[in-house]
Amino acid sequence: FLFGSSWLDTRSMLARRSVRPFFSLLPSSSRLFFHTPKERGQYATVQDRDASAFDAILGRHGVICDEHDLKPYNEDWQGIHAGHAKLALLPASVEELSAVMKHCSTRNIAVVPQGGNTGLVVGSIPMFDEVVINTKRMNKIIELDSASATLTAEAGVILETAEAYANEKGMRVPLDLGAKGSCTIGGNAATNAGGLHVVKYGSFRSNILGLEVVTADGTILDLTSTVKKDNTGYDLKQLFIGSEGTLGVISKLNIACWPKPSTKSVVMLACSTFEKVLDTLNQSKINFGSSLSAFEFLDVRARQLVLDHTAERDFFDQSHPFYAVVEVESNGNNAEEDNRRLYDEHTNFLSLLLDSDTIADAVVANNEAEARKIWSARERVAECAAKAGKVYKYDVSVPTRHMYNLVVDVRKKLEGHASVVGYGHVGDSNVHLNVIVPSFSDEVLNLLEPFIYDRVAQHGGSISAEHGIGAWKKEYLHLSKRGMALEYMRKMKAAFDPECILNPYKVI
Amino acid sequence: FLFGSSWLDTRSMLARRSVRPFFSLLPSSSRLFFHTPKERGQYATVQDRDASAFDAILGRHGVICDEHDLKPYNEDWQGIHAGHAKLALLPASVEELSAVMKHCSTRNIAVVPQGGNTGLVVGSIPMFDEVVINTKRMNKIIELDSASATLTAEAGVILETAEAYANEKGMRVPLDLGAKGSCTIGGNAATNAGGLHVVKYGSFRSNILGLEVVTADGTILDLTSTVKKDNTGYDLKQLFIGSEGTLGVISKLNIACWPKPSTKSVVMLACSTFEKVLDTLNQSKINFGSSLSAFEFLDVRARQLVLDHTAERDFFDQSHPFYAVVEVESNGNNAEEDNRRLYDEHTNFLSLLLDSDTIADAVVANNEAEARKIWSARERVAECAAKAGKVYKYDVSVPTRHMYNLVVDVRKKLEGHASVVGYGHVGDSNVHLNVIVPSFSDEVLNLLEPFIYDRVAQHGGSISAEHGIGAWKKEYLHLSKRGMALEYMRKMKAAFDPECILNPYKVI
Repeated sequence: FLFGSSWLDTRSMLARRSVRPFFSLLPSSSRLFFHTPKERGQYATVQDRDASAFDAILGRHGVICDEHDLKPYNEDWQGIHAGHAKLALLPASVEELSAVMKHCSTRNIAVVPQGGNTGLVVGSIPMFDEVVINTKRMNKIIELDSASATLTAEAGVILETAEAYANEKGMRVPLDLGAKGSCTIGGNAATNAGGLHVVKYGSFRSNILGLEVVTADGTILDLTSTVKKDNTGYDLKQLFIGSEGTLGVISKLNIACWPKPSTKSVVMLACSTFEKVLDTLNQSKINFGSSLSAFEFLDVRARQLVLDHTAERDFFDQSHPFYAVVEVESNGNNAEEDNRRLYDEHTNFLSLLLDSDTIADAVVANNEAEARKIWSARERVAECAAKAGKVYKYDVSVPTRHMYNLVVDVRKKLEGHASVVGYGHVGDSNVHLNVIVPSFSDEVLNLLEPFIYDRVAQHGGSISAEHGIGAWKKEYLHLSKRGMALEYMRKMKAAFDPECILNPYKVI
Repeated sequence: FLFGSSWLDTRSMLARRSVRPFFSLLPSSSRLFFHTPKERGQYATVQDRDASAFDAILGRHGVICDEHDLKPYNEDWQGIHAGHAKLALLPASVEELSAVMKHCSTRNIAVVPQGGNTGLVVGSIPMFDEVVINTKRMNKIIELDSASATLTAEAGVILETAEAYANEKGMRVPLDLGAKGSCTIGGNAATNAGGLHVVKYGSFRSNILGLEVVTADGTILDLTSTVKKDNTGYDLKQLFIGSEGTLGVISKLNIACWPKPSTKSVVMLACSTFEKVLDTLNQSKINFGSSLSAFEFLDVRARQLVLDHTAERDFFDQSHPFYAVVEVESNGNNAEEDNRRLYDEHTNFLSLLLDSDTIADAVVANNEAEARKIWSARERVAECAAKAGKVYKYDVSVPTRHMYNLVVDVRKKLEGHASVVGYGHVGDSNVHLNVIVPSFSDEVLNLLEPFIYDRVAQHGGSISAEHGIGAWKKEYLHLSKRGMALEYMRKMKAAFDPECILNPYKVI
């Protein structure tokens, strides 16, 4: 069990590691269940004169046109789809970005805004030959105001870089994702990223104070703000957060930072029923309040995947139907003392849960290595599922009390066809449902969809809790929208991007 | 120093009390500095056949047309303005509300949505003869889901009623306002209410999971959600939050509740400079993290107002240039032990601040009466300012490090004309600036405005941190908007209310 900075550094390495193997393991046959749009929109095709215009705006470092160099801009990292952009543009300032958009708007050229291209719903690559606008060269950290704990930075800053910068001043950017080493803060805002600590810090939206955005016609819309409270009319920035680049290209952010915790406590619990997991969650909330920084669950099949496909060993003598990984943060000015106090508090709390038979067993991390192992049990599930077979992945929100019923229902429906595994952010009503099969097939897909999405809609949940819609889930968007909501979404699209040149074929 | 429920009950009584005297003290001559719109819009005048139609929709309890009975619907509680509505409509369900809006839309009748009518910017009363639509009869609490800590209720529920309902189940609605006994949760959402605990819980926006809204044409827009994470396209509900009834009438809310703290610690600190107040704030954030639930400041003039106009006595032997009221919450399952621990932690922390000369003095509440007295010093400032003279009140955000410079600048500018008092939510960069004069005059007003708003704009602040725009600050809205932001706000207005029948003459 460790303190402060070394702890956080370890966690971030762990998080990164969980992405890499997954990358290479996802099979090209996963294309089976992605329907590319049938028809290219009536957009202009890029001509030599466009390339010259972009050269003039961006200089030679800002325009990529070599076929080989274009690959990472065209390809989805999961191997699901690859676009055929002939140009990727890399503006180095908001003025350059604005000039690029003005040109595209005038010429009716479709564009795909792109950050780290780490998304999971095929939202940041071209479907056809849309021009890619990647923000990676807009990577300046502009200011960290210690007095108001506000970080101002350009959109292309890597999340981990922003985090490291804040850490140096004793603060943290309240977002922790597997992709933090390569995703950009602009992409995080465009997708309203979630991650492991939403239960404490909220989604990224909650911590975005201001944005600068370039709209389809090249307008620089200055919605920046370094103050927390601003009730002067409509909060336009909220529309861009989570809009996946379909309303504008985010160029700058003001992010509310948080004090870095002095210590943390990490625990794995075992429960005999999902109801007892929920009971533990509620008691943890009451006991730890806003110090509760993660509450993740795994069913026994998710746990077993990691035990089967890694060298990790079980923490308990016997297996249990459900597990939870719980993290509690503490602040204070004496890390050692804070740590001792938190450890005592957490173990006392667990004793009470054991006495009342709410939990069946528990392990508390006593050092960094143990804490890492506990987190590993949660973070390596996706990687191990990919080792076990082909995986249909769903990321849905369902009101907590119905959450595991969804897993049970899908398991029943898929009996004899697939292994169905449930895990995820129970503290946020967000379940990751992995359906593992020997090989992808239309038969299984037809059993799964729209069944899962219908069930989620019935429970008033969300068909995409944190990953977004992209091109991937576009056809199911209506299941999470009721009445005129889609119609009003279209009105917003029309207001900001009347010619639909921003990220077409995505979201709406 | 007290625990749990009795403590919260006391605070809420205190909060209520601070509203009442203020009400009757605000002079009608304050109209001096409110410019009513010059011209009535081209809206239909209510006819007998309209009244009959509303009777048919709402029944006799739902239509108020008696001149005397209409007074509370027409009048601003501060006495600044009174409208001349001939009708106030009180729908009892969203269907009735929708039918009313359909009729008004068809007939081009302007309406003013109204909750508890407790706002401070003349936003919820008619300017001319707009029909008032008050939500007070839509006051059902629909559900409190303990598992996901979500309260679902109609817009007309009184905040304090919602809070009491949540308290019964060990939870709290994370919003605490002086007006809680009479404001409605729908009004709180429409104005994105702030209050005393934003430093911990965020503005109301942060805790609204879903909304049902009726738009200008009577469409019931179902944006409800009881899940925390939902990344399925544009987050339309955010537009309605803080739009002050100009885009739609909020009819139902899903609110994220929080666990009720088991104990609290309340402290008053004295500092020799404002920089030391900020230093104390930052150290408090590091030490208490998300347990810090309030951090308010007062300058010596604000403190003196309360000492001069109440029977309260100073806590310290001598006066100090600055004071802060700090509250820290704690969770746990043993209130007595939690309380002892928190008390020790807070006093140890204060000792360190005293040793380093960051604070000059401090008092820690040892019981409920003392805690109440400390809060009183903060909460009675507005009431005592009104006893001292006529008051020009400003509620602005300024980045923390420039915050008190604004007070100093205004004081300099008004030298010989007014006493300038600064206090407010320093934890949220939000200062309440009270300018006290013997009587209102154009001379003073011309010194104050646009000077204050210009200064705020220069610092990148907000001319309305929590109170909103209403009719009161409409002419200064542009100072908090840059470039095309106002233009895009107008596009939003056009999308949801093309005929501008919703709360005209307000905000935009």
